[in-house]
Formats: sequence, structure tokens, C-alpha cells
Amino acid sequence: MNLNNIRIVLHQPSHPGNIGAVARAMWTMNLSHLYLVQPKSFPDPIATKRATGAEALLEHAVVVDTLDEALAECGLVIGSSAQTRHLPWPILSPPECAQKAVQQASKQQVALVFGPERTGLSNEELQRCHYQVAIPANPAYSSLNLAMAVQVICYEVYGEFLSHHATEGVMRELASDAQLQSFYGHLDKLLDAVHFRRPSSSPDLIPKLKRIFNRAELDEDEINLLRGIFKKICNDPSI
Amino acid sequence: MNLNNIRIVLHQPSHPGNIGAVARAMWTMNLSHLYLVQPKSFPDPIATKRATGAEALLEHAVVVDTLDEALAECGLVIGSSAQTRHLPWPILSPPECAQKAVQQASKQQVALVFGPERTGLSNEELQRCHYQVAIPANPAYSSLNLAMAVQVICYEVYGEFLSHHATEGVMRELASDAQLQSFYGHLDKLLDAVHFRRPSSSPDLIPKLKRIFNRAELDEDEINLLRGIFKKICNDPSI
Repeated sequence: MNLNNIRIVLHQPSHPGNIGAVARAMWTMNLSHLYLVQPKSFPDPIATKRATGAEALLEHAVVVDTLDEALAECGLVIGSSAQTRHLPWPILSPPECAQKAVQQASKQQVALVFGPERTGLSNEELQRCHYQVAIPANPAYSSLNLAMAVQVICYEVYGEFLSHHATEGVMRELASDAQLQSFYGHLDKLLDAVHFRRPSSSPDLIPKLKRIFNRAELDEDEINLLRGIFKKICNDPSI
Repeated sequence: MNLNNIRIVLHQPSHPGNIGAVARAMWTMNLSHLYLVQPKSFPDPIATKRATGAEALLEHAVVVDTLDEALAECGLVIGSSAQTRHLPWPILSPPECAQKAVQQASKQQVALVFGPERTGLSNEELQRCHYQVAIPANPAYSSLNLAMAVQVICYEVYGEFLSHHATEGVMRELASDAQLQSFYGHLDKLLDAVHFRRPSSSPDLIPKLKRIFNRAELDEDEINLLRGIFKKICNDPSI
């Protein structure tokens, strides 16, 4: 049980005030690792002002250029979005999200990802996540402020953490996100090598396959096993 | 079950930005009745700006001079405060608070009261409430922003409200066991066709692969997709 293994990732936040409010929201719930992917303005005195008491989180925030960098060593990645998608991603409620995050954090790094204020996560960004978490909201107005959404999710995480001290299940250590992405690259090559993909193929082909393997929660041995099969199929040890 | 009977009461809020953020937080959670007791500045363009989409709540907000006026017709009054008191008040967790509020709201008016930003509710004000609700927070830094606290409590209230309605989760219809077994038969043939299996192969090979795909909880479309790939690999439509 280790909240230190849980990071909040803000993808392209526009408003420094929100970054500060997120830091405060996190720290009230005992979370302290903030990653910022291409923040529009950071550091910024407005962020510092809104952090009121949680300035240390901003000082230690990790600023990166790509979502990949923010997620690289994470075994579990959950993206927050209210929207349902053309290709539905496995959706967790906030308590389910908290449960998975806290459980997995006993083993390895976990990322909770929040998209830009106006648009939220794109389909492609959401598909980089293993799960989607959706905060139930008013169908007529579901637009939570970014920092509010972070507060709700962190509140659930901290509640789960508090309630969890007794029950530690047997946890598998999952493959890191980098290993998983490399596996997907290999799968992609396989489809080409066996000429499965055609011009007429659905653009959803790869996302559909990712959805399957995300649900499977692969560990490193399993990825090696599957890649061994892929290699044999392609008959090309270099792939 | 009537969320219209639940009001949020802000007692002496100082910052108009927080009033706007509270309105937005409430409306995302389907609550719309806001009472303001001696707000320092209201109406205020800063409040309107922060309400982004929930301006109607501000227009209909009821401004009063005393807490008594804001609570007069309420059958249940719950005050939010992180602090434990010299004279401990009956404390509810946020889910307990939500349960009581939603239950009581089917009968009569309910007030959820939040104190001034700096000091929170005084002992005397808290004792005007029937219960205290405390949001579990970091012992080292328990100071949630006012609007954040409102968001968390309203989130619990709305969740409680939803759980009383017939809860239809988004259930996927999974492949039948027969379909799954047939899929495993196909996988077995694939491994032979690509000569992946050798005499030295672990007897666990098939169980390991089954474990992966069992966790993936495949549906019929997904099985068809994977079998399509298998067929292409073997280049034998009869398999």
C-alpha cells in the first residue's frame, strides 16, 4: 500500500490556476507526484498562488514533452473522461478506479491521466490508457472543472487507501507501459507480415486489439511468450 | 428521491471565485439550490466567470442575512468541517452524509452547510447542524478549498441518488464458453501450424495462453477478429 507510487498526469493543461488547484487537491488527499505534459504556462505565479500550502508539489512537479514520457514506467494507466466513445474503452467508476490504482500501487507505478480543460483526452490519448474512469455527472452539464475532477478521483483514492490497510490481495506485477507499447508495435508488424491488414480494414482494428490485451493485464512473462509466438509466425527473429 | 429538496448553504464566503466554482460543482452533480449567507461580494463578475455554464444557479441563488434564514424550513442540516471539536459532534463520512441527505430529501428540505474559507464553521454554527460531515484528508494538510469540498460532498450525494435508481451498468455480453473453447482449439492449431510448439515446450504453454485470454473477457466479435487473424497466419481457410 503505497500512495507514493500513484502519480497524477495533467496532459496539456492551459490554465496555471488549475495546475495550482490540482496540487492543492492532491495534497489534501496525500498524493504528491504531479506530472505535467506540455503545460501552457509553468511555473507561473498564478499556479503558486492557487496551490496555497501545496507549493512543494509544484516545485517537484515533473514537466515532460510527451505523454509517453509521463507514463513510461507505469504498470497501470487510467484516463479520466466523461465522454463515451465511438469505440468504448473499459470504463471504471471512481471507486473502482481507486481500488485498482491503490492495489496496483503496492507493486509498481500507477498513472491517473487528465486531459486538457477544453477538449479532454482525445480518442488516441485515451487509448494509451488501460482504462477510462468516468465521474457520474449531470447529463445536462457534465463538465467538471479539471481540478474538481482531480479532487474527486484523489478523494476516492485516499478513501480506498484508508479502508485498505487490512486487505492486501495477491498482486501480480504487470508489464510496464513501455513494454506494453513495444508489444503493440510488434503486434502491428505481425499484422502487416501476415497481410491481415488491408486498405478496407477498419481503422479501429488496432484499438480493438489493444482493448483486448489491456483487459488481459499482461505481465512481462506473458508479453515475452506472445512475442515468442509472433516471432515464430513471422519467421524473422529481428522483428 | 428528489434532489430539488437539497440545498447548499455557504456561510459568509469571502471569495466570489469560490461562489462561482461552487455553482459549477453543484450543477455537475445535479444540485441547483444555492443559499448564500452574508457573502462578501455577490453578485460579482468573478463568480459569474468561474461558474462557466452554471450561471443560472447564481441568478437563482438566495442571499440571506442569517444562517437561521437559510435553514428555516430544513428537516435535516449537515455541516461540513474537517475539524474535530472540543465537544465532538456526531460525525458522518461523506457517503453516510449523502445517504441521510438523499433519504431525507424524499420527505423534506435538507441543507448542507459550508463555513467561511479561512475559519470554517464555528462551534456555535456547527451546533446549529444536526450532524457534522468530515471529508477524510491528509492529516498533514487537510485544507480542501471550499468549492472542492462542495464538489466532493455533491459527488457523493449524486452517486447516492443514482444508486437508488435502477442501476444499469454498461454490461458487455461475453462470448459463450463454447465459443471460447472453440477459439482455444483454433489457437492450438495455430501453434502447431507455425511450429511454435516443440517437444521441449512447457506443458503450461496452453494454460498460460488461456489465462491471458480468460482475463481479457472476450466477446464474440473479438473472437471473430482474432480467429480472422489466425486464419490469415495459417493461410488455410479450413482451420
